[in-house]
Amino acid sequence: MGLRVPVVNAPMGGVAGGRMAAAVTAAGGLGMIGMGSAGSAAALRRELPHTASLGGRFGIGLVDWVVAAEPELLEVAIAAAPTLIAVSFGTDPSWIERVRANGIRTATQVYNATDARRAEDAGIDVLVARGAEGGGHGAVEMGTLPLLDAVLDAVTVPVLAAGGIGSPASLAAVLAAGAGGAWLGTHLAACSESSLPEASRRAMIAADGTDTIATTAFDVAMRLPWPTRFPARVLRNDFAARWTGHEDALRTDKAAQAALAAAIAADDPRTAPVDAGQGVGRITAIAPVAQVIDELCSGAAELLARGR
Amino acid sequence: MGLRVPVVNAPMGGVAGGRMAAAVTAAGGLGMIGMGSAGSAAALRRELPHTASLGGRFGIGLVDWVVAAEPELLEVAIAAAPTLIAVSFGTDPSWIERVRANGIRTATQVYNATDARRAEDAGIDVLVARGAEGGGHGAVEMGTLPLLDAVLDAVTVPVLAAGGIGSPASLAAVLAAGAGGAWLGTHLAACSESSLPEASRRAMIAADGTDTIATTAFDVAMRLPWPTRFPARVLRNDFAARWTGHEDALRTDKAAQAALAAAIAADDPRTAPVDAGQGVGRITAIAPVAQVIDELCSGAAELLARGR
Repeated sequence: MGLRVPVVNAPMGGVAGGRMAAAVTAAGGLGMIGMGSAGSAAALRRELPHTASLGGRFGIGLVDWVVAAEPELLEVAIAAAPTLIAVSFGTDPSWIERVRANGIRTATQVYNATDARRAEDAGIDVLVARGAEGGGHGAVEMGTLPLLDAVLDAVTVPVLAAGGIGSPASLAAVLAAGAGGAWLGTHLAACSESSLPEASRRAMIAADGTDTIATTAFDVAMRLPWPTRFPARVLRNDFAARWTGHEDALRTDKAAQAALAAAIAADDPRTAPVDAGQGVGRITAIAPVAQVIDELCSGAAELLARGR
Repeated sequence: MGLRVPVVNAPMGGVAGGRMAAAVTAAGGLGMIGMGSAGSAAALRRELPHTASLGGRFGIGLVDWVVAAEPELLEVAIAAAPTLIAVSFGTDPSWIERVRANGIRTATQVYNATDARRAEDAGIDVLVARGAEGGGHGAVEMGTLPLLDAVLDAVTVPVLAAGGIGSPASLAAVLAAGAGGAWLGTHLAACSESSLPEASRRAMIAADGTDTIATTAFDVAMRLPWPTRFPARVLRNDFAARWTGHEDALRTDKAAQAALAAAIAADDPRTAPVDAGQGVGRITAIAPVAQVIDELCSGAAELLARGR
């Protein structure tokens, strides 16, 4: 796709808006606008002006069941004529042909070799091999390294590696293995251009790589129809510790649901979910996207040069 | 340690005997004799003749709670004067000084940056960063890639990467990230020189990377005192599917325990545990250790040369 650096930001809902997309593209990667579970055609329209000057060098990432609920969302994305549209978390691949017919490349997340072959058969242009370490929603089936390996072995389309990549060393690792690039979430979520609220950002900076948990508790409490195959990896906070494994009780606990809603509104990360992958421990400060990407890529290039 | 290739075999109990150790050393790596939960001074003495001609170029891997039950096991290991002794799965680091005083290098498995710093403070020579993808016993805390990254960032001693590494691509990845080498388990368990029974080997060849599960069910049924922090990753078979998450009931189910014992005696992998990491999908045949190591290392070297 003609990128200067092998970095695509994960289209994190509520985090990767037009500002982040523009910053990632300006840094030489491909910036993605993310429409998560709260995504909508109207919300996408609000973010698009930030990417208007990029000449289409950006992407848009959507959630399958959100698009199914509001098909106009995909229409708005196509009309924006980005370089790449990613739709993930679904099983119906018919969107791929529709998007490609408009001259736009397609991507989707996969979690094992079977997923990968199926997406390639459906005409996908780029695969995102997203390991269990990754922040936010995704299947917890294989770690990034064996998954990337299995996917590269199974398909011929370019593969981006995702999940726990947040340092020069881990970026060098996936590039050496044969990934076309990295799909970075967590590490960019704490950047200046992210839409993540302040207290959530501070919680990320304070966290270690062992402080995350994959859970469906928040989605159950918020009554979001995420397929159970896709829990979200978040910082392990009071709510996650209390309710993970007790989702059935949570389903009818109005008080817990209300407390969560209040905590989200107040940006209180002791209760509200903060998506984070196992690379979160490497985040030590809020920095501009350009600086983070430059440090990752120049460090990875050095390691790869040394590797020979 | 003067190795020709950056490979150390995991000291897999019941799998990595003296034959495997000798083969790995002959292939240029460091061969390890593994004494697992069934390890003993007598069992170690039986394996040592296979490594007698190696001039000490081999290692011995022990389990902390097995050594605690039979301290003579560590004495026999030290008397064998290997290059490396690894003791893992414990919290008391006093063995490190004792082994080093005999001019033998020390290694231990770690699962997060805190583990790593603690082991370095205790004088360890080599760390094994063992990700959640790995086969057999280990903490399921972080994936191999973010764990390796966090450990390399935390300590200055050499770090071997473990967990899901079973291909040239994944070996190249961990070397590019800065690992001193790979600690290979699963991929070597299926080799000709492994002590793994035949049906278990065939089950590994048939399995995919998503066919594993980390469980304490087998250890509970066999009344092995593994700390609960260390489940074993095994092929997901009937027994694992039935009892994982129901360990309390299993503890008193004599019939299930007897059925498991019978299956282990009969090498029936539908019920008996077969340790396997998420790289198991890349095993397609039983091959000699020398061939497997040569293919992994020459493939990784090619990838690393290309990466520049």
